[in-house]
Amino acid sequence: MNIGILGTGMVGQVVGAALAAKGHTVMIGTRDVQKSLASTEPNGYGMPAFGLWHKDNQHIKVGTFAEAAKFGEVLVNATSGLGSLEALNMAGADNLGSKVLIDIANELDFSKGMPPRALANDTRSLGEDIQTAFPNLKVVKTLNTMSAFVMVNAALVDNGNSTVFINGNDANAKAQVSEILKSFGWHDIMDLGDITASRSVEMLLPVWLKSWGVIGNTPFNFKIAR
Amino acid sequence: MNIGILGTGMVGQVVGAALAAKGHTVMIGTRDVQKSLASTEPNGYGMPAFGLWHKDNQHIKVGTFAEAAKFGEVLVNATSGLGSLEALNMAGADNLGSKVLIDIANELDFSKGMPPRALANDTRSLGEDIQTAFPNLKVVKTLNTMSAFVMVNAALVDNGNSTVFINGNDANAKAQVSEILKSFGWHDIMDLGDITASRSVEMLLPVWLKSWGVIGNTPFNFKIAR
Repeated sequence: MNIGILGTGMVGQVVGAALAAKGHTVMIGTRDVQKSLASTEPNGYGMPAFGLWHKDNQHIKVGTFAEAAKFGEVLVNATSGLGSLEALNMAGADNLGSKVLIDIANELDFSKGMPPRALANDTRSLGEDIQTAFPNLKVVKTLNTMSAFVMVNAALVDNGNSTVFINGNDANAKAQVSEILKSFGWHDIMDLGDITASRSVEMLLPVWLKSWGVIGNTPFNFKIAR
Repeated sequence: MNIGILGTGMVGQVVGAALAAKGHTVMIGTRDVQKSLASTEPNGYGMPAFGLWHKDNQHIKVGTFAEAAKFGEVLVNATSGLGSLEALNMAGADNLGSKVLIDIANELDFSKGMPPRALANDTRSLGEDIQTAFPNLKVVKTLNTMSAFVMVNAALVDNGNSTVFINGNDANAKAQVSEILKSFGWHDIMDLGDITASRSVEMLLPVWLKSWGVIGNTPFNFKIAR
């Protein structure tokens, strides 16, 4: 399947490479293609600059946000949450159409230092804001509660014995995204309901960040144990 | 040890009975002792009215908030979060002193129907508000992320293989509370830091409530899988 990913950061790189490895044809969209391909500065999360990364991943196409949105049958929002709506606006409602958008992003405010503040609360969320701004999109919120490497390889944590949450308004879209999740090794896929459930999963980020501080770089994830 | 519990609801009943069963001497504090002891209306969570419950638990003392606060060497805030500060004010700063207060409460707003809204966000929390209002208290936030029956019996969920979070400003207080947690079967006790970490654990409630909707009354709990 053709998949368009918005965002060249760690999540875009890791998810893009993983989808390509599963046989999908992937285009990563960016604000400025030439600038992204020329970048050589590491992004601070242990991943290479996108330009260097792409030299090793030339099977992955690179285009503008609009080109990636047009290219993909399914889209992935892997932008930084505070820039997601701007990126989607640059992609354009016509190109986004009524496609499935997998929204992985979190609104994290790094302006006051580390750990960043998570801006979601129990009255609003990024997932809903995207759905409201683009009512034809089939927004499916998932994968935002774990590190990029765990997203694409559930087996990294306790032999795959942890939970991925999913929510959205369209049952068929959630079923389609669940197939992608299964291809990444997920079997405990917990459907929390419509897109308003994005509030709840975006509100997990502060405990995720605190846990990261306790555990360090060992892979970990939320599990709903029962 | 003498333990004073503020709150006659499900959490106060279950935690009080469990602490008494471990050999502690427990006094439950309430706004109006006579009214609580005379109550016969079920509280809506499948627990009997306090008055009926207490007939079967007469080894547990009942007093005012002030009497329970004075009685306990360690205190437990098991009030409804929206009423916690009022209850603590009725208990009185002199009676609270510099004791350890285990804060289990969550601010849940039921005024807009079910599920309730969780009022914590990444700028404030009830745990911190209590610590600010009573700076001498050693507030330890824990156990607020699970049902009452799981709080006192970790083995109910996956043979005890789930996580309890703890945070607070005083290391000795956290160590003392950890011993109580161990007596309830907890071994994965994750210290998330000072009292500001209450924000993060109070923000777990929306996913807890959504998960409850999915799973039903089977015991479940958060686990940080790794």
